[in-house]
Order: sequence, then structure tokens, then C-alpha cells
Amino acid sequence: MEHLSPEAKIKQLNLELPPAPKPMGVYKPLLQDKNCVYVSGHGPVTLYNELLRGKVGSEVDKDQGKQAARQTGLAILSTLRSNLGSLNKIKRVIKILGMVNCTPEFGEHPYVINGCSELFVDVFGEDNGVGVRSAVGMASLPENITIEIEAIFELH
Amino acid sequence: MEHLSPEAKIKQLNLELPPAPKPMGVYKPLLQDKNCVYVSGHGPVTLYNELLRGKVGSEVDKDQGKQAARQTGLAILSTLRSNLGSLNKIKRVIKILGMVNCTPEFGEHPYVINGCSELFVDVFGEDNGVGVRSAVGMASLPENITIEIEAIFELH
Amino acid sequence: MEHLSPEAKIKQLNLELPPAPKPMGVYKPLLQDKNCVYVSGHGPVTLYNELLRGKVGSEVDKDQGKQAARQTGLAILSTLRSNLGSLNKIKRVIKILGMVNCTPEFGEHPYVINGCSELFVDVFGEDNGVGVRSAVGMASLPENITIEIEAIFELH
Repeated sequence: MEHLSPEAKIKQLNLELPPAPKPMGVYKPLLQDKNCVYVSGHGPVTLYNELLRGKVGSEVDKDQGKQAARQTGLAILSTLRSNLGSLNKIKRVIKILGMVNCTPEFGEHPYVINGCSELFVDVFGEDNGVGVRSAVGMASLPENITIEIEAIFELH
Repeated sequence: MEHLSPEAKIKQLNLELPPAPKPMGVYKPLLQDKNCVYVSGHGPVTLYNELLRGKVGSEVDKDQGKQAARQTGLAILSTLRSNLGSLNKIKRVIKILGMVNCTPEFGEHPYVINGCSELFVDVFGEDNGVGVRSAVGMASLPENITIEIEAIFELH
Repeated sequence: MEHLSPEAKIKQLNLELPPAPKPMGVYKPLLQDKNCVYVSGHGPVTLYNELLRGKVGSEVDKDQGKQAARQTGLAILSTLRSNLGSLNKIKRVIKILGMVNCTPEFGEHPYVINGCSELFVDVFGEDNGVGVRSAVGMASLPENITIEIEAIFELH
């Protein structure tokens, strides 16, 4: 399946992308510098344009956290598609910074952020879908969203 | 006004830059790689070379936080000018990571970090002054400074 | 001593590198894009392949934190060597993001992260070993590790 394009994989997997989130402040959702695309910190936007909220370890559990990370990945894909025209312009994932809104005791950030990383594998493939990553715990995130992820992609 | 150079805009707006901060550890304030300039995490340095301190949500409020973010932006401009010779060498903002020292309950990070982002719009313009961004909440920052921001700029 | 290669310096200083850490999730430890090498967030892996754990300011003190940052730097060197074949392919440090698992009151992040930065100076030299840096406090880190550091290096 590795030879399917990202857009074909989205179709095959019946993935629905949420609306591309509007910036919550003075920034661009995405910026291109040569064949490098920088993506702003995204939150978990649902298909109904709502945000998934709650701190992992107290208000939500790790599986809800992982689901929020997946939804954040879908929001990033939506921003990429709406700004670039097609996900097929993406060659590979370079880097993600996965930030979990969680309690000081929480310790399963990699499990949570895999929600986004596994989605990117599904869409971009076993090699191109996997970049470098940090998965870490934040004191708080805007409007108490559960996850914020920023990313860098390489274009063809 | 978009056609004014960054240095002309600084003059027009009567912006005063604080002294370029000396590193608090083993790092360079700024590093150039081809036409890309990486800037270390900066704190809110005042004109009197003091640091603005206090956690947003308990010790200081969101407007003091926004003011600290603006002051952090001015410190970044000072580092850019003193290392590059002139802000006119900057073509555009690529990316900022805006880190707010705040309580676990705080949720208005975008409002706070806009203090820096709006400054960069004033200096570099509506398009070139706006890059990608993440705005997030940290458990703590060095010496209890209110804000730390790292950035990437593109040179002409 | 600046003229010694990184591998020669490792030998001269009798530095022992821990085993290159296996990813704790869906990511690559290292990714090369032209002459730029991105390194995933690494934790403090010991020579016995254990992780140094504990929050700075409550469970461990700042000197244990600094030691953990140094060990994290050694783990990064191990990943670089095992993926690139030799540390001599590294030209210089571009950037590190030093994340300290600490209490909300902790304020000496630069002191702690110097544990990694001083190691990189020892190995890569006074100029090439020093990049830009942010040193910040996280609410929590995976499996309660004391430090997580991600980095960007430039290749020759």
C-alpha cells in the first residue's frame, strides 16, 4: 500500500478531515520556505469544529488523550490540504513536537502522541510518515485543549 | 507603511530596544545557517536590563504577560540588530515558539504571545512579520521570567 | 585542542556512550535533510541502559538534573554515531531545546541544561559545539525522566 498517494490513502481509509482551523492569534497556520513547510501549533479540532479539551491524568484519560492527538493530526492534514491544494505535495514528515496538556504525574506522553504519529504513518507511509519527535508535558494549553502539535514537512 | 524598512519602522514608532541580553548559559544568542537565523530562547529584558518575572495566572495577570511578551520581542530585535548590524537584513519571520510561565489553569496563551507577534507585525509588516507559531504553558522558566520565546527568521 | 576531531575528543576524554536509545513511540531517532540532522527528544540513558528519573526541585536536585542533562547529551551522541557511522560527520551544533522535568518553583534551568551544552563544547569545540538554545521547565516528561533534549546539527 506504500505506493498509494496520501490523498488516495485518505480516501481508502475513509478519513474525514475537520475544517482547517483559523488562527487563534497573530500567526499563519502554515509557512513554506523552499521545499520545507512549517506548521503552527494545532489543537484537536473535531468535524463539528469544536475543540477537545481537558487535562490528561485528571479531566481525561490517556486514551482520550491519544484520540485528541489523532484529531490534532487530522487538523494538521486539513491545514496542509487547504493551503497546498493537495496532500500529495507532501514528501515526508520531518519533525513533530507533541505537547500534552497533563498533570505533573503523567508519564505516557509517547502513547498519547502516537495518536498523531500513527495517523501520519497511515497517510504518508511507513518511512515517509515517520519523522523525528519529542513528546512532552505542558503545564497548560490554550483554552484547555488536550493536545497541541507543531510540525515540519518536506515537499516534493 | 508596508514599504518602510524595519529600521525605519522602529524609528517611526519610537521603539526603544533593551540591551541585547547576555547568554544565561552555554549557548549563542543567535546562529546563522545560510539565509536562516536561529534565535535562542529570550526573556523579557527591560530598558534597564532587568527581567520581568512572575507566573501568569497567579503572580501577574494576562495583560502583564502580554506586555512581557512584547518586551521579549524587543529583546529578540536587540539581539538581531547587535549580531547582524541592522534589522533590515531580516526578510521575514519564519517561526516563533512562545512559552508562557503560567498556572495549570491558565488558558489565554495566544492573547499573551500576541504581545510579541503584534510587535513583529509593526516592525516587519503584515505579511513578512507573521510566521508560524505555537503558544504554550510551561511549568516554570529560568529565574521565574514570565515569558521565553525562541524564533527563526529568514534573511534577504 | 580545537583541532581534534569529535571522535578523537571522545577518546581523549574517555567518554563512554550509552547504547543508542530505541524509540519509545512511532518516530525516528534521527532524520537527515540535506546537511541538516534533526534529532528526536532524547532522555538520560545510562551505560546500563536505564533512564534517570525524578522531578528537579522535589525528587532530585539541580546537580542531579545537570548530570541527567549530560547523560542525555551522551545518548544523543550515541544516536548520532550509530546512525551516521561517526561523530566526525558533524560540523556543528545548530540548536537544542532543553526540557527540564521540574516543579513550578524551579528556576535554574540554564544551570541544568549546561550539563549537555558543556559536553557538546568538549566534543565539538568552543565554537562549533555551541548552538542556540532554550532551557525550559515542563509539567512532566515520559516515564518521569528528568530531562528531554531535542537537537539540530549541521553535517560537513
